[in-house]
Amino acid sequence: MTRNNDLNTFFEPTGVALVGARRKTGFGYGIPIVLERQGWADRLYLVNPGGGELHGMPVYKTVAEVPDPVDLAVVIVPGPVVPAIIDEIGQRGIKHVIVESAGFAEVGDAGRALQDQAKQAAARHGIRVIGPNCVGVVNAANRFTTVEIADEAFTPGGVSIIAQSGVFGNVLLDMLPEYGLFVAKAATLGNRMDVTEIEMLDYFGNDPATRLVMMYLEGAADGVKLRHTLEAVTREKPVLVLKTGRTEAGRAATASHTASLSGEDALYDAVFDQTGVIRAENLEELVETARVVATQPLPRGNRLGIVTSSGSLGAMATDTAVSRGLGLPNLSDATVAAMRAAAPDWMNVKNPLDVGPAPMFQQALRALIADPEIDMVIAITIIPYVIFKELTRRGYPAEAWFGDIAAIRAEAPQKPFVVCAVGHSEFVREMRRISGPEVPVFVSPEPAARALGSLYNYSVWRAGRGHVHGPKA
Amino acid sequence: MTRNNDLNTFFEPTGVALVGARRKTGFGYGIPIVLERQGWADRLYLVNPGGGELHGMPVYKTVAEVPDPVDLAVVIVPGPVVPAIIDEIGQRGIKHVIVESAGFAEVGDAGRALQDQAKQAAARHGIRVIGPNCVGVVNAANRFTTVEIADEAFTPGGVSIIAQSGVFGNVLLDMLPEYGLFVAKAATLGNRMDVTEIEMLDYFGNDPATRLVMMYLEGAADGVKLRHTLEAVTREKPVLVLKTGRTEAGRAATASHTASLSGEDALYDAVFDQTGVIRAENLEELVETARVVATQPLPRGNRLGIVTSSGSLGAMATDTAVSRGLGLPNLSDATVAAMRAAAPDWMNVKNPLDVGPAPMFQQALRALIADPEIDMVIAITIIPYVIFKELTRRGYPAEAWFGDIAAIRAEAPQKPFVVCAVGHSEFVREMRRISGPEVPVFVSPEPAARALGSLYNYSVWRAGRGHVHGPKA
Repeated sequence: MTRNNDLNTFFEPTGVALVGARRKTGFGYGIPIVLERQGWADRLYLVNPGGGELHGMPVYKTVAEVPDPVDLAVVIVPGPVVPAIIDEIGQRGIKHVIVESAGFAEVGDAGRALQDQAKQAAARHGIRVIGPNCVGVVNAANRFTTVEIADEAFTPGGVSIIAQSGVFGNVLLDMLPEYGLFVAKAATLGNRMDVTEIEMLDYFGNDPATRLVMMYLEGAADGVKLRHTLEAVTREKPVLVLKTGRTEAGRAATASHTASLSGEDALYDAVFDQTGVIRAENLEELVETARVVATQPLPRGNRLGIVTSSGSLGAMATDTAVSRGLGLPNLSDATVAAMRAAAPDWMNVKNPLDVGPAPMFQQALRALIADPEIDMVIAITIIPYVIFKELTRRGYPAEAWFGDIAAIRAEAPQKPFVVCAVGHSEFVREMRRISGPEVPVFVSPEPAARALGSLYNYSVWRAGRGHVHGPKA
Repeated sequence: MTRNNDLNTFFEPTGVALVGARRKTGFGYGIPIVLERQGWADRLYLVNPGGGELHGMPVYKTVAEVPDPVDLAVVIVPGPVVPAIIDEIGQRGIKHVIVESAGFAEVGDAGRALQDQAKQAAARHGIRVIGPNCVGVVNAANRFTTVEIADEAFTPGGVSIIAQSGVFGNVLLDMLPEYGLFVAKAATLGNRMDVTEIEMLDYFGNDPATRLVMMYLEGAADGVKLRHTLEAVTREKPVLVLKTGRTEAGRAATASHTASLSGEDALYDAVFDQTGVIRAENLEELVETARVVATQPLPRGNRLGIVTSSGSLGAMATDTAVSRGLGLPNLSDATVAAMRAAAPDWMNVKNPLDVGPAPMFQQALRALIADPEIDMVIAITIIPYVIFKELTRRGYPAEAWFGDIAAIRAEAPQKPFVVCAVGHSEFVREMRRISGPEVPVFVSPEPAARALGSLYNYSVWRAGRGHVHGPKA
């Protein structure tokens, strides 16, 4: 595949015209403010028939007046004006437009007719359009955005997002940094009058900054093309999809809102299965799987080792892991011998390795991570809060008990490694601190096991179809 | 059923002997400290052969020296000493003992023999025993505890917990207050040498402070008795069970640790189905279901109304709700007419009701909650973080946009009502604040829909088998 440079201008414009810049608060009012804060003031041109000044910037009365260089227009005018504005933009020679305005196919017949007019206008000028009814794009690398988001959402990461719904895409950008997930690029496509999720997927597939594609899909424009594109992209990098419309009622719920026809769910399941897509059942699973897939290498096999300070939580993780296709093999003879030599009588040296209250967690964790019979590790840390507080007060931080997790992670970078910290939020925060950015910390064992299962399934698909190297390669 | 007063002394002792009170830090060291802080200093007697003083309290050299009144002994001496200590306790006339010491059936043959000796000693004196290998009990009402927990865990609530594993029970007590879940009583049973989960379930079934029983089960002592007891209890109040050992590997993982034989999972599933038990698939589901079941009334039917500011999230909630047995009926004519009269053209007035960015969330929520065609409501609130911050700064708090959720809840106390707040954690915190203690707030739509599905299923079972009144009755 070659890079789709046609879409690149949406993410790396030379100059941007904001058409319909608002003087009063409301949708889009903050776009110039956020762009200015991110360093785009010198490449941003505001357009509004009133002219004058806004946020200390001159306001051009028409698109025709906007000086060079400008190669992208962001449109937030009222829906009925959009076709005429697209004509103006085309006459000015701008070939890329993001239409954020709503009131098109998503609102019924009149809106559909309006969308057709807009489409014809774009076609007349050879303009590529994202939208309408969206919030456009984000590019963390150059801090370009067409949506108001918080500063922390610009921390560059490896996840690129495709969402049909604008507001949902926006809120994902708000949420993900809190889970330690950072974005490369994001695109909300709205009614997909021109640019579809398929074309965007192809673009992200060829984007070096994108290590993982996360898609929220209500329905696809073209099933055959979707399959071909997915097949190509998943050879190179994981694609994680959340698709609503699993049920009839769910399909009815989405039908109006970004004007997509949700296809039959079984067909999507088949396409995802055949193309190595990781399908998330729901929003929680989308986020938890991304946390693991974005940070962990592909495992060499399905052999999971669990070290735990709670037998119960070890059993919960085991149930989920096994039901997701992972296995819990016996530990190697060397590991068993080393652990037995150090362990108190009551400890049952097996997998899951429940060290209970014995001060052997670090040793057990290091042994499992080094064990040649083990392909990936879950460390389940649990300590009653009162004891945690007392140990902290006495100068024994979480590292003293559970080890320097970030350092242990670095000892075996080729094995997926995930931590669960179950208990009081102060303890969880402390475990996040000592685990560092490369080890996801979950608050329950099941998401960790589910996500590792998904990572393993993807690794099997990749080994058969694609190149064998990690998602970070 | 009559109240099992035999178990009552474990939760409401007149005086408590702590046998094996430690001078150095380690397991059980903090028990006198936490009991003193909770107001039990005048009813607590420490026993240790060394005598002297500890935490400002006198230490008795033998159980025989402990003055009256004392009717409960908590034992934390090393395992091998336990049988002899139980004899001493029996000679002192104490009939209730919690053995927290480990090193019994959970560690193999030698431990099993030791446990048999302890059992025989208890039988000789007619002593009831909780344990060994546990952390005993908590009673929020009288602030009695045999385990070190934080002060907030004593906030009285309606959930009573039965756990085999002590450390897991302890950590549940640490976690639950953070989810707005407060405990009536908790019992960790360990190896269940005498008191089993079945007897405890019966006791909680008859305990007026317990509105919901939450059980963590690795395996049951007696399947027939379990079924009979569950049947009786679920007529009166909901029972929520998390059982590990769903898989062969999961069963193997639990086998050693509280010395239980995990039964075949399909049998448990059948028992739970036939007795109206709500089975949680995993720890997350245990907590999320409890949050809804502990606070919401039983619904009159399965008709769910969803109001949302995001069509995508509405579709996700719909998919989950429908797959869990809920239906999304049409809204009543009156609701549709009222909403149409007020709504902008683009709004599609149906269920789920997606109000998008229109300032009609409160009106829509009130209409759904009042709608006679709707039995329960999910309100999905979502707002981009930057806009949330700006509105807050301008003096429009979350109430101004989404309504005073706690007050709206009070308008229809007979309908289950749950909120989802998706986005930045500051926004979620604010939604928790305005929703009050009676409305669970989730950060993703699916747990809300799953939990309401479980509540509905239980209501159907209750309508058929038990008395028809809410779990709070």
